[in-house]
Amino acid sequence: MHKKLFIPGPVDVREDVLQKMATPMIGHRSKAASALQKSISEKLQKLMYTENTILLSTSSGSGLMEGAVRSCTNKKAAVFSVGAFGDRWYAMAVANGVPADHFKSEPGKHTSAEMVEKALATGEYDLVTVTHNETSSGIQNPVEEIAEVMKKYPDVIFCVDAVSSLGGAKIEVDKLGIDICITSSQKCLGLPPGIALCSISEKAVEAAKKVEFRGLYLDLLALYEYVKKSDQYPSTPTLSHMYALDYQLDRIMEEGFENRFARHTEMAKVVREWAKKHFALYPEEQYASNTLTTIINNKGISVADLNKKLGERGFEISNGYGDLKEKTFRIAHMADMTMDEVKEVLKNIDEILGLE
Amino acid sequence: MHKKLFIPGPVDVREDVLQKMATPMIGHRSKAASALQKSISEKLQKLMYTENTILLSTSSGSGLMEGAVRSCTNKKAAVFSVGAFGDRWYAMAVANGVPADHFKSEPGKHTSAEMVEKALATGEYDLVTVTHNETSSGIQNPVEEIAEVMKKYPDVIFCVDAVSSLGGAKIEVDKLGIDICITSSQKCLGLPPGIALCSISEKAVEAAKKVEFRGLYLDLLALYEYVKKSDQYPSTPTLSHMYALDYQLDRIMEEGFENRFARHTEMAKVVREWAKKHFALYPEEQYASNTLTTIINNKGISVADLNKKLGERGFEISNGYGDLKEKTFRIAHMADMTMDEVKEVLKNIDEILGLE
Repeated sequence: MHKKLFIPGPVDVREDVLQKMATPMIGHRSKAASALQKSISEKLQKLMYTENTILLSTSSGSGLMEGAVRSCTNKKAAVFSVGAFGDRWYAMAVANGVPADHFKSEPGKHTSAEMVEKALATGEYDLVTVTHNETSSGIQNPVEEIAEVMKKYPDVIFCVDAVSSLGGAKIEVDKLGIDICITSSQKCLGLPPGIALCSISEKAVEAAKKVEFRGLYLDLLALYEYVKKSDQYPSTPTLSHMYALDYQLDRIMEEGFENRFARHTEMAKVVREWAKKHFALYPEEQYASNTLTTIINNKGISVADLNKKLGERGFEISNGYGDLKEKTFRIAHMADMTMDEVKEVLKNIDEILGLE
Repeated sequence: MHKKLFIPGPVDVREDVLQKMATPMIGHRSKAASALQKSISEKLQKLMYTENTILLSTSSGSGLMEGAVRSCTNKKAAVFSVGAFGDRWYAMAVANGVPADHFKSEPGKHTSAEMVEKALATGEYDLVTVTHNETSSGIQNPVEEIAEVMKKYPDVIFCVDAVSSLGGAKIEVDKLGIDICITSSQKCLGLPPGIALCSISEKAVEAAKKVEFRGLYLDLLALYEYVKKSDQYPSTPTLSHMYALDYQLDRIMEEGFENRFARHTEMAKVVREWAKKHFALYPEEQYASNTLTTIINNKGISVADLNKKLGERGFEISNGYGDLKEKTFRIAHMADMTMDEVKEVLKNIDEILGLE
């Protein structure tokens, strides 16, 4: 039995989108491949509110996150973290010998504009990474406020992890001055995992030109130059995901960006109200994510048990991530999920736990 | 109109295999995901004739090639090249600051056991990379002879690029003592591009433990440790490709490994005979690939024109790679292609060029 996924990726993918994954192959050096890449780029520029160049990477979002911090840091990176994926970004810098400092918020707390301001005032950093939406803690950082700080430091590269929010929350890349905005297919875009994408500014491209060891496969400059030249990629890309992405972006445009973001906001509200009634929110409510909700297990239920029983009914939610396992649990409300489906899973949890 | 692909990847994928790309999603931290990974590994160990650990990477083959040379070189890598993809392996070492020397054969010539012996006798190297089958030049290197040399240097890591041969030619990994054998989905395995895979020996794992900066996403040690722990991957993998790969490996086993290799050999013979009759082989015949044939355009035809006319008939072959464009052209005969299909494309070329 297929379980409906309320986990923060991979999300359920609609049948018509899945079918696009079965599109027959074409040569990756053909005109058809260039046209496909171009079509995707133009649509993503709209969804990201940017005129920057779009890069696709046959990798998970982690691949492009590593590529960004390695390709574009010349001096030192300031890595802000509100959970496991922010921590991982720091680990990526360390694993590549990229000078970096780790600004880790207290558990459950956001990255504040003040924290970023204080760090940048030292003049030590030429690149900042911020998580927009943290999949482990369910925190959505105030990227608009942080962007205001970043504007005072126009030479610093601004990288944003929007892996679990882009397509489910409005991120106006150009207005916010984001140099590298990264996302992945298996979250709010509603596709299978296997392709990551980012926007990249000319400022980031110029920074990358000064970095000596950027590697090759995840080198954002190599991707950028190849795309600019030919609308193609240095290595054979995952054409299946490209077909599905191109199709799904049309569907997202049909729904309307604002409608889609509003749907996510509405679903989040319902889950948060439910969480507050029966448990408690892990993040402060004003920084709670609109795409997934991390809930404190203050009733001491067995999350594993709950998920097993949900599984028998055809649903799957997520346990807490890493250290937060059993201490928290997570319900995702992203991609093509509907309010009815959200209410359905909550009703089933109520029944299993005897909540009223 | 879909064109039948006689290019050296992406290859045509059978409809039933394509349909597996449309499998609904599951959680990548679920027992089902572990079972899928385990099933694939066991089958690949058979196809690779190895008991070494299998690693999957959501990337092209280039991703794992870069991961191998970066993760496992402590002293210096000896990179042997017989074309563009060997050259790229050297570029990967350079781009990562990995000490490496480039042993480039003369155009059209193979990597000989003597060349490898001479390099290793210096004692400078702790890692060797060899291309088994070079997609640009159509050269298949004498990996068995090279393996005999490698056995005299048991401390040196032996890496083989089998991207365009594994599944179409017999590569007995353990017998040959290959420490890291790399391939990709879109060649002889008959799948869409988007997943790469390799076998890795304990010797290579131990070498990786001593390398300080291996990065994270392409770090073979990180992949190895995660798989050993949980039969899962550090990042969300391309589940769609995993479903298709698991299914296709069953089909490959149904055909029988020896039958499959023999089919590739037979198709290669027919294309080589045709090439020698009308043009000339680019490699020396004894080192000509069994999965693709690179042909010297000694008639001065327009390859682009030929391919355009073939396209109108529903076929696609490849121009020469890079500098070899128009000077050579390539016909692939790999994956699930049949002898009838090979003969069909040759007949069509004959008709278009007026060959007899």
